[in-house]
Amino acid sequence: MDIQQLVQNLKQESDSKIVMLVADGLGGLPLEPGGKTELETASTPNLDALAKKGISGCQIPIKPGITPGSGPGHLGLFGYDPLQHMIGRGVLEATGIEFEVGPNDVAIRCNFCSIDSDGNITDRRAERIPTEESAPLAEMLNQVSIPDVEVFVKPVKEHRFVVVFRGKGLGGNVADTDPQKTGVPPLEPMALSDDSQRTVEVAKQFYEQAVKLLAGQPKANCLTMRGFSEKPNIPTYKEVYGVRAAAIAVYPMYKGLAQLVGMEVVGNAGSLSEEIDVLEEVWDDYDFFFVHFKYTDSRGEDGDFDAKVKMVEEFDSIIPRVMKLDPTVLVVTADHSTPAKLASHSWHPVPTLMVSDNCRTDACETFSETECLKGGLGHFESIYLMPLALANADRLGKYGA
Amino acid sequence: MDIQQLVQNLKQESDSKIVMLVADGLGGLPLEPGGKTELETASTPNLDALAKKGISGCQIPIKPGITPGSGPGHLGLFGYDPLQHMIGRGVLEATGIEFEVGPNDVAIRCNFCSIDSDGNITDRRAERIPTEESAPLAEMLNQVSIPDVEVFVKPVKEHRFVVVFRGKGLGGNVADTDPQKTGVPPLEPMALSDDSQRTVEVAKQFYEQAVKLLAGQPKANCLTMRGFSEKPNIPTYKEVYGVRAAAIAVYPMYKGLAQLVGMEVVGNAGSLSEEIDVLEEVWDDYDFFFVHFKYTDSRGEDGDFDAKVKMVEEFDSIIPRVMKLDPTVLVVTADHSTPAKLASHSWHPVPTLMVSDNCRTDACETFSETECLKGGLGHFESIYLMPLALANADRLGKYGA
Repeated sequence: MDIQQLVQNLKQESDSKIVMLVADGLGGLPLEPGGKTELETASTPNLDALAKKGISGCQIPIKPGITPGSGPGHLGLFGYDPLQHMIGRGVLEATGIEFEVGPNDVAIRCNFCSIDSDGNITDRRAERIPTEESAPLAEMLNQVSIPDVEVFVKPVKEHRFVVVFRGKGLGGNVADTDPQKTGVPPLEPMALSDDSQRTVEVAKQFYEQAVKLLAGQPKANCLTMRGFSEKPNIPTYKEVYGVRAAAIAVYPMYKGLAQLVGMEVVGNAGSLSEEIDVLEEVWDDYDFFFVHFKYTDSRGEDGDFDAKVKMVEEFDSIIPRVMKLDPTVLVVTADHSTPAKLASHSWHPVPTLMVSDNCRTDACETFSETECLKGGLGHFESIYLMPLALANADRLGKYGA
Repeated sequence: MDIQQLVQNLKQESDSKIVMLVADGLGGLPLEPGGKTELETASTPNLDALAKKGISGCQIPIKPGITPGSGPGHLGLFGYDPLQHMIGRGVLEATGIEFEVGPNDVAIRCNFCSIDSDGNITDRRAERIPTEESAPLAEMLNQVSIPDVEVFVKPVKEHRFVVVFRGKGLGGNVADTDPQKTGVPPLEPMALSDDSQRTVEVAKQFYEQAVKLLAGQPKANCLTMRGFSEKPNIPTYKEVYGVRAAAIAVYPMYKGLAQLVGMEVVGNAGSLSEEIDVLEEVWDDYDFFFVHFKYTDSRGEDGDFDAKVKMVEEFDSIIPRVMKLDPTVLVVTADHSTPAKLASHSWHPVPTLMVSDNCRTDACETFSETECLKGGLGHFESIYLMPLALANADRLGKYGA
């Protein structure tokens, strides 16, 4: 029995409310030895007050030393073992452009490529064709028609686009057709298990028709297909935790990740302040609220320390509005660290705090990477965050007599 | 290989002695924000001296956020994965009245109930019949006679009693017969796996004879059967750790839990002080001593903060007598927290300390929830307590060359 199954067995009703604020990529690093991290540099009076009142700790997104992508990072926060539940590349790409992948779908990340008259690839990315040229070509591929299968083709960016096949009996276990080199033609699609044989036939038909439609294009006259995948078979928040869960995010990827675990995406916020407007509006209708703030991660990815500090301060400024709603449990955390120094996601533990009436406060005086080392939550893997939040919200019964 | 198997492989002989003092429900919560817990409020000069000398930490009974019952809580302390080894409800109930469940037994928690002339239940608890009325009825049911099966019926309290069937080929996988509502008859017993088919036949025979014996009773004229279970197949302390283990407890439940893992229950103490008398008496005869103190939990369950503080102080007062015996390793811990504020078991980590010559002392100055956060044992799951104690007692060899 894993921790999530255990929690599912122990879940109980309550009228409590849990808010999980995720400041994407929050954890950081000092630029110089002996310096402060972005979070430690920022002025965060509201988060510091919560740290004094609540319990802090160092959250390990996957396992020590492992740097997570956004998918596994969020799955862990949501309490799903990210090593057990994989989100396929195709599904993640589709999710990222707000395409809701359904149970009969296979999603595929496609690349436009260039081939010569012999059919051999000359450029695997179609000379990095600009989006304004590639998007109409992707849209055009919606003309492909395959019996008993719905085909959706959606542009992404430059040479990248998404194809979704919708129909009965389609498995997602198909090898990539990208040969990873030039001078050879794209590979034939090949089933990696019997349940995906039909997908291969559909993919071949799609490819044949698509290549005809693209014939004569100067750059994008062919395509490769990668990351075939189905919607992961994940139990929903309602099933596992018994909560009505709302997701509030600006970026499609995070809305999509929340949808994969059965959260309802609410509102159409374009900024953090608008996200809190939505939180206030839907407060009575849900038990659990996932609120995602993107820009701490974005500025970290940019390698812009000072800009990330400002984003942390913007994040801090909305805390009083959230606390005014009087959540039973407030969690502040992130899906991973994104130190500006590294300009990328990293493996470092994520500063995390929880506030509730019965959280057993620790001696932490501020919210920071350093202070969290003294925290009452200790070092813990992200999958324990949901059980802890549910316990604090009186939503878990006793295990055994 | 799990940790217990590893320990079993590495166990080695020694003449060291380990004492595990369990102050049930020891961990607590402050009543007010910024206040102190029960343990922090109590005057505990002896425990504080041990904290200074030893190594402390926060013990997580099952997994973060999970509140354990007494059964899983103690299994964890004893080093048995409480998610792997389940103690059935019937076995736990039998254990709680000092009935030693054997390998050919199926134990069942039964309720007296009231039925009308149509056989439909009118009260699932026989109008909460007082024990002085129900106990003789339960004893009377020992008249039931089933070929090739020994039947034991033992009163518990009010409408509750225990039935144990002893015989070959009895499985414990049978559904409850309590329909969980009135106006309908009890359910027929039903096997949930093939190995329990014979148990169903025995249960039917028991039920038929019992209902005849109860006919005409004003309240308790019928019964329901729940929590069918067998003795869990748990390796003994001797097998796993190679120690001769003694259990010293006042309450039957804890004696029973210790018996399930092969400890020998010694003495017949009625108080903590008498428990230590027993400890002194049997000191030369065993290698490991589990000493259980109940009242820290009881007063926590009562929601009586001050009374729990007094119990902690009583617990502290016996420490010098234990230390006079000069144990190689002393462990002070609990099966779970029972904060008076919640008047129930809780998920909070349990303050734990270990004293031995080679424990690598930390900077903890007192024994408390807050101080344990600085402890050298860090946050750790209860199943690691036994390996740590054995290592400190020079009872574990090296893993690998």
